[in-house]
Amino acid sequence: MIVVKIGGAAGISHDALCDDAAAHIACGERLVIVHGGSDATTSLARQLGREPQFITSPSGHTSRRTDPRTLEIYQMACRGVVNQSLVLALVRRGVRAVGISGVDASLWRGTRKSAIRAVEDGRTRIIRDDFSGTVDRVDPSLLNTLMDAGYTPVISPPGLSEAGEPINVDADRAAARTAVALGADNLLLLSNVPGLLRAYPDASSLVAAVSIERLDEAESLANGRMKNKVLAAREALLSGVRRVVIGDARAESPISRALDGAGTVFA
Amino acid sequence: MIVVKIGGAAGISHDALCDDAAAHIACGERLVIVHGGSDATTSLARQLGREPQFITSPSGHTSRRTDPRTLEIYQMACRGVVNQSLVLALVRRGVRAVGISGVDASLWRGTRKSAIRAVEDGRTRIIRDDFSGTVDRVDPSLLNTLMDAGYTPVISPPGLSEAGEPINVDADRAAARTAVALGADNLLLLSNVPGLLRAYPDASSLVAAVSIERLDEAESLANGRMKNKVLAAREALLSGVRRVVIGDARAESPISRALDGAGTVFA
Repeated sequence: MIVVKIGGAAGISHDALCDDAAAHIACGERLVIVHGGSDATTSLARQLGREPQFITSPSGHTSRRTDPRTLEIYQMACRGVVNQSLVLALVRRGVRAVGISGVDASLWRGTRKSAIRAVEDGRTRIIRDDFSGTVDRVDPSLLNTLMDAGYTPVISPPGLSEAGEPINVDADRAAARTAVALGADNLLLLSNVPGLLRAYPDASSLVAAVSIERLDEAESLANGRMKNKVLAAREALLSGVRRVVIGDARAESPISRALDGAGTVFA
Repeated sequence: MIVVKIGGAAGISHDALCDDAAAHIACGERLVIVHGGSDATTSLARQLGREPQFITSPSGHTSRRTDPRTLEIYQMACRGVVNQSLVLALVRRGVRAVGISGVDASLWRGTRKSAIRAVEDGRTRIIRDDFSGTVDRVDPSLLNTLMDAGYTPVISPPGLSEAGEPINVDADRAAARTAVALGADNLLLLSNVPGLLRAYPDASSLVAAVSIERLDEAESLANGRMKNKVLAAREALLSGVRRVVIGDARAESPISRALDGAGTVFA
């Protein structure tokens, strides 16, 4: 059982990923695909005349400002653009792909941050109409039902808050929770970087392997989006996933390559 | 087994429909919900600065012009707005709802119209980059897998052409094909009218019942969107669905009311 999280940044070919996924599925492997929608949300928001906004927390963490309208745009982008296009690409390759969101059958339950502290021009203010959160409970039964019958789930945000609201969630960390809930052997976090780099963006500074003892060190090397990937790797590893690979989605056969150890292997 | 097609026009409360659906599902009834996305597509297209365009065929039939960009907007509206909101409303009511599109696992296969004749200012021209079509084959296996495991499918357009392209399909007729493929007893087509009216919009002119022998007469009474509903009723009835009701989605308990015979009953 393999959970593959695929990034959405420019330069990532869904074709190569879907070719490779189809080959693995044809060999009888169980694959669950997870994606986010950050870039698609930014693009759609701009088409709708809204410049995306980001919040910086007092600790320096940056996240998308998800007001009610942005939540709508996020859902259109995740579900109506990214998920729909991945499912189509897989179906065209003979995969019985089924697109589901974290809301469906309460798959991804999480906690909405009811009050977010944001730093603006040196001042901290509290934001209360934001719909961001974290997935903290994954119900694997729908995924198992689908895979038992030969279907390949393709999971999209949003998650579902305890109060029944859709929430913007980090898909890397949601993928980690999903891998844990499924008892997956491998979690692959594939994006537009070769892996965790000691000196970003120098590809020759790739960290090839991270042991459980070295997780803190790995975390201190990560910046920006990589921070969430390392955090996801930590969460998965400490909860029983055998191996996590942060690898490159831009190569040919990106799944096989990551399984072969290309990228940063956490084990 | 009941297939419910819910319309998207103004005045339709998804709350009442979802309350009623949840009650039926809690009693152990098997329900499949189908929706379209015409109004949501129009609304999103306008937000994106595109006035929706419609094509009139030489026979006088009107349909949405679905160029490649409109196809994208249609998918965002169907999948990212209507489907997502119906699934959320059902999940909040304790239903294990799963949103799927006609593309998923090749559920709704259809034929794309590769060349459409359109009449404009009295002249006929051929349009070749349109992505409209008709569902002519429904694979019920994913729906049965989901229902056997206690999930309620909520199906959204688009359909999937034989060449693997998403296509804009009429959801009433796709619902009819779905009811046939599932061997459903009842197909309910619920929208913002009381049923088939002899003198639209006079509600007192409701046609209460249509027998198989009177299908032609019913068709001759229908205009606009009602035409496709009567066509859907015909297709379902002639292919073994016991009863089709064109009913009002705006009332309280719209499913129960339609099952009790409120609206136009085809049998």
